[in-house]
Amino acid sequence: MGKDHPDSKLFPHATGAAAKMVQEHEKEEPLKLYSGWFCPFVQRALLVLLEKEIPFQYIEVNPYHKPESLLKLNPRGLVPTLEYNQKPLYESTVICEFLEEAYSNATPHLMPTDPYTRARTRIWTDFVTSRIIPAFHRFLQHQPSSSSSIDDVRAEFLDKLKQFTEAMDPVGPYFLGEEVSLIDLILAPWAVRLWVFDHFKGGLNIPQGEAWERWGKWLSVIEKRQSVISTTSDREHYLPIYQRYADDTAQSELAKATREGKGVP
Amino acid sequence: MGKDHPDSKLFPHATGAAAKMVQEHEKEEPLKLYSGWFCPFVQRALLVLLEKEIPFQYIEVNPYHKPESLLKLNPRGLVPTLEYNQKPLYESTVICEFLEEAYSNATPHLMPTDPYTRARTRIWTDFVTSRIIPAFHRFLQHQPSSSSSIDDVRAEFLDKLKQFTEAMDPVGPYFLGEEVSLIDLILAPWAVRLWVFDHFKGGLNIPQGEAWERWGKWLSVIEKRQSVISTTSDREHYLPIYQRYADDTAQSELAKATREGKGVP
Repeated sequence: MGKDHPDSKLFPHATGAAAKMVQEHEKEEPLKLYSGWFCPFVQRALLVLLEKEIPFQYIEVNPYHKPESLLKLNPRGLVPTLEYNQKPLYESTVICEFLEEAYSNATPHLMPTDPYTRARTRIWTDFVTSRIIPAFHRFLQHQPSSSSSIDDVRAEFLDKLKQFTEAMDPVGPYFLGEEVSLIDLILAPWAVRLWVFDHFKGGLNIPQGEAWERWGKWLSVIEKRQSVISTTSDREHYLPIYQRYADDTAQSELAKATREGKGVP
Repeated sequence: MGKDHPDSKLFPHATGAAAKMVQEHEKEEPLKLYSGWFCPFVQRALLVLLEKEIPFQYIEVNPYHKPESLLKLNPRGLVPTLEYNQKPLYESTVICEFLEEAYSNATPHLMPTDPYTRARTRIWTDFVTSRIIPAFHRFLQHQPSSSSSIDDVRAEFLDKLKQFTEAMDPVGPYFLGEEVSLIDLILAPWAVRLWVFDHFKGGLNIPQGEAWERWGKWLSVIEKRQSVISTTSDREHYLPIYQRYADDTAQSELAKATREGKGVP
């Protein structure tokens, strides 16, 4: 793409706490994560790598100048792409579950052992990707000229978060109980980006009620989790990216799919 | 829904080989599968149950008169819903992987043990649901008045099948090699419905070539697999159902999503 592409002014690398994390993972390792510092799908994979302290190499990908090494592994050049034994893996949820299985001795164990609870985890993982993220983007990309009102898209998003919360262990603080697990990390990148609604869309306006207390309890442990802090850049550099989403001029695949009324592509 | 709903004349139960299978699974069992005899997503779960010879009770659901027992488990009343220890599971791919894990001693083992191969299986499972099935439906529901030509939607569908085939073990005959596994069963219900394109859409027109020879080899073992035969009803009863898809008047969630240019809902 040419230099005039509106996304080409993207800030080029992680900042703040995330810059330190990147620096600590710059040396050559057989396990490589092709990343975008701003990408919440990449953050999912990073959270698992950091939680389990799996040695890996962080490789920042400029989406408009993708490295040949990535294109050889994954012709679509999408991030996150994981390189494992010179072979590619992609799709953030697949990468997360793979890391848990391939490094099963590394703690914390992020998948429950009981098959029924594992299946529930997968149902709610799918719910995050197929329901919560599209609703997040319909709200974020909402325009005054849209056919639905901002109150409608806000209510739809809150309804999805509430359904997710009502499926949590009632005590918590994590989704499955006392311990963090994959389903927490699958939603975390969007949970720590909720400030975009305060900044651009007049606020989330979370109502009172038991479910929302439980949500607040979950969110507070997620925000304080070291892996989450270590994968978060300075807000000022997210701002121009989310400004384009908020103006509905972003050109990412997800932004375009949302404009077309579709889900996560 | 009222009696005038166009889908309400749906033939009410399995026929042919599938009728025998249903009869063999009518007695009360703690593990219950809420089913629709015509539904390919239900067929996925049935294939796993039959392959592993897991005892289960088959319960036919009339989609316009859903039983209370199902609505209690799954308020949306969708099939397949699995009842396990009085608790619900839904989403066909989640049910399939759950059955493999919960009955891990029952052979055949449908998931490979190597984490990388497991991850690849999940990537291609997602490809079936997010790419192949939507392309199947865009082709099947194509109308002369559509903005794209029938040749375009046919080519798009064949391209997806070819990509899937090129990811197979080159010798096979199954996707991963000599033994059947979950990824074969995930696609099988659509593979054995390809006759709908000959019947309604002027044929699949599969080209020559190495990939298509490999596809033919795979399809031929899938069609002959006893579990596939035992879950297939007489074609005459599928015909009126697929007629409505071919005319683009079907009212299923998937038919409507396809009309709106969306994926599997």
